[in-house]
Amino acid sequence: MSTAGKVIKCKAAVAWEPNKPVVIEEIEVAPPQANEVRIKIVATGVCHTDLYHLFEGMHKDGFPAVLGHEGAGIVESVGPGVTEFQPGDKVIPLFISQCRECRFCKNPKTNQCENGWAADSHDVMALAESRFTCKGRKVLQFMGTSTFSEYTVMNQMAVAKIDPAAPLDKVCLLGCGVCTGYGAAVNTAKVEPGSTCAVFGLGAVGLAAVMGCKAAGAKRIIAVDVNPDKFENAKVFGATDFVNPKDHDKPIHEVLTKMTSGGVDYSLECVGNVQVMRSALESSAQGWGVSVIVGWTDLHDIVIRPVHLISGRTWKGSMFGGFKSKDGVSKMVKDYLDKKLKVDEFISHNMTLDQANDAIELMKNCKCIRAVMSVSPP
Amino acid sequence: MSTAGKVIKCKAAVAWEPNKPVVIEEIEVAPPQANEVRIKIVATGVCHTDLYHLFEGMHKDGFPAVLGHEGAGIVESVGPGVTEFQPGDKVIPLFISQCRECRFCKNPKTNQCENGWAADSHDVMALAESRFTCKGRKVLQFMGTSTFSEYTVMNQMAVAKIDPAAPLDKVCLLGCGVCTGYGAAVNTAKVEPGSTCAVFGLGAVGLAAVMGCKAAGAKRIIAVDVNPDKFENAKVFGATDFVNPKDHDKPIHEVLTKMTSGGVDYSLECVGNVQVMRSALESSAQGWGVSVIVGWTDLHDIVIRPVHLISGRTWKGSMFGGFKSKDGVSKMVKDYLDKKLKVDEFISHNMTLDQANDAIELMKNCKCIRAVMSVSPP
Repeated sequence: MSTAGKVIKCKAAVAWEPNKPVVIEEIEVAPPQANEVRIKIVATGVCHTDLYHLFEGMHKDGFPAVLGHEGAGIVESVGPGVTEFQPGDKVIPLFISQCRECRFCKNPKTNQCENGWAADSHDVMALAESRFTCKGRKVLQFMGTSTFSEYTVMNQMAVAKIDPAAPLDKVCLLGCGVCTGYGAAVNTAKVEPGSTCAVFGLGAVGLAAVMGCKAAGAKRIIAVDVNPDKFENAKVFGATDFVNPKDHDKPIHEVLTKMTSGGVDYSLECVGNVQVMRSALESSAQGWGVSVIVGWTDLHDIVIRPVHLISGRTWKGSMFGGFKSKDGVSKMVKDYLDKKLKVDEFISHNMTLDQANDAIELMKNCKCIRAVMSVSPP
Repeated sequence: MSTAGKVIKCKAAVAWEPNKPVVIEEIEVAPPQANEVRIKIVATGVCHTDLYHLFEGMHKDGFPAVLGHEGAGIVESVGPGVTEFQPGDKVIPLFISQCRECRFCKNPKTNQCENGWAADSHDVMALAESRFTCKGRKVLQFMGTSTFSEYTVMNQMAVAKIDPAAPLDKVCLLGCGVCTGYGAAVNTAKVEPGSTCAVFGLGAVGLAAVMGCKAAGAKRIIAVDVNPDKFENAKVFGATDFVNPKDHDKPIHEVLTKMTSGGVDYSLECVGNVQVMRSALESSAQGWGVSVIVGWTDLHDIVIRPVHLISGRTWKGSMFGGFKSKDGVSKMVKDYLDKKLKVDEFISHNMTLDQANDAIELMKNCKCIRAVMSVSPP
């Protein structure tokens, strides 16, 4: 019996308020409206940004919400005006849209889009205009996506159609972490062959950045983390050197500068910590070093000295790895299927949506690379 | 009678201590040693960085010194091993060397050189290994150059040979200010045709940045200064719009963002003020804006929010406009002679070395664009 055009009652992990466990609830998901697509979410990763909303970036008006922005699924039905998708298509929901029409989409220098949820979300990281209700209350869509739900509704400009051969419980990670880190190296830093790189923070994003540096031809990739248990993983993705700041009395930028006779060509901050952002900048080479902020925080200022830049460094930031979202995700899925890209190696835990709080705890305590939750059966 | 090989007694403006007027003294200038060139300085500009050393960046161990780093002159004699220069050559002393052999000189991404005064000066902005004495004391060479002296001695790797047709009382400004601003737009920001730019601060460096933006094909160049008297000058160099932050209640970055429907493509900070550096960054467009710090200060921190970069801006710094110094200055002199570059228009005051304190006061009080002092007769 087709569900198209009907409200779907399904399971979702609802974050009712900040700093509290999410609650598995039955929610109602309205049918897609014009230009919208309703997606059955098959699998989703848990990303630090989900935790950020829950525990750190606590806008009270960002709740209740369904978290999750690293999912993959199958189109269940489409609203009026949707021509690009049809039921049964495998897709990845995108937290950065690609409308192809705004001045951002038309500018090859950026992957931002003026027409996505972010434009409407007013810094709350949640789309108020959601299709979710629960117990009579409107439930917001975190980052416009809400993949911790069996069904979600997205505007078609924020959905990537992917190869039907793609295993959804793997490629879901291309919805955020893997593309974010990999693209930061390849697209934003534009790492060059033969160069020396440093990656700060070896979560999934940092490991993907290591993989991006390697793919770009870096000769030396220095993996930096205060948890040495992560170094083995980093080696899998291509890291050549391993530095634990706790092993050194000197500031980490001095250690790296000495190791590299003047600083690395490219440094990537994959933590979301303003001190580390400065360290990464200072670790890059005077004269030509490029440092990229990949980790997210909006809680603190970064403080630097003008000479850090005047002496010839370039400082950038990266969002979703600089990928134009639809184009980039489709291509990355293809690269994965062509075995040009590792994805399986990021998955340390396979869980179910019912275990959402366990998965969140794993991430919070840095006990996983990525936990992937199966949501709906495919 | 040749002076080669002999100590020359000549006039120089000596800064004996911070925060005091300079004193016209007779100093002794030793003959050039191996790979050195002794230069008769014909003319010199006064740059804000001279004042910075005297009034702001007051390292006590940076005195006594002869200031001046924006000069032009004629080779008087050369030391052993010098093959590139001979007496009579017209030259411009360089505060950034170009040895052509170090890893910086061999890297096209930077104009820094490992072998110049800066490598030896230990942040004091003065070369201790100087050839100057006065009243029995060693006198330091500010920025390695000391153009407020009738004669100076430079390593040949920090001297640019220029076209014999060049008028030294004009092209001296290519020793710092004009190249610094122009190159920041052309080389560091890499301003693109059709773009929108904002230049903060309309001293000589800022005006040169305006000229650089125009040369690069910018369509709209917004000149920003709290002194509206400077707007007429900016128009001469190509500015199309003029904004006085004092005319607005809102922060200047909000004003510019509104004027340009989202921010400028390129912003250049030509003041040396950390608040303005942040404003310039915030004025550049989310997604692709590039902001360049051109002004110099090492007295304060800059404070930004990570989102300023994560949202897609690039932040850089520029030193001497990114020009490889010898190559750049020789080429810029040629461009001036070929009438591709304005220089005369920067000169608001012609003075003599005896008037050094008057020239410094003019600069301190922002009453000039550039005062050029004649030093020795040509």
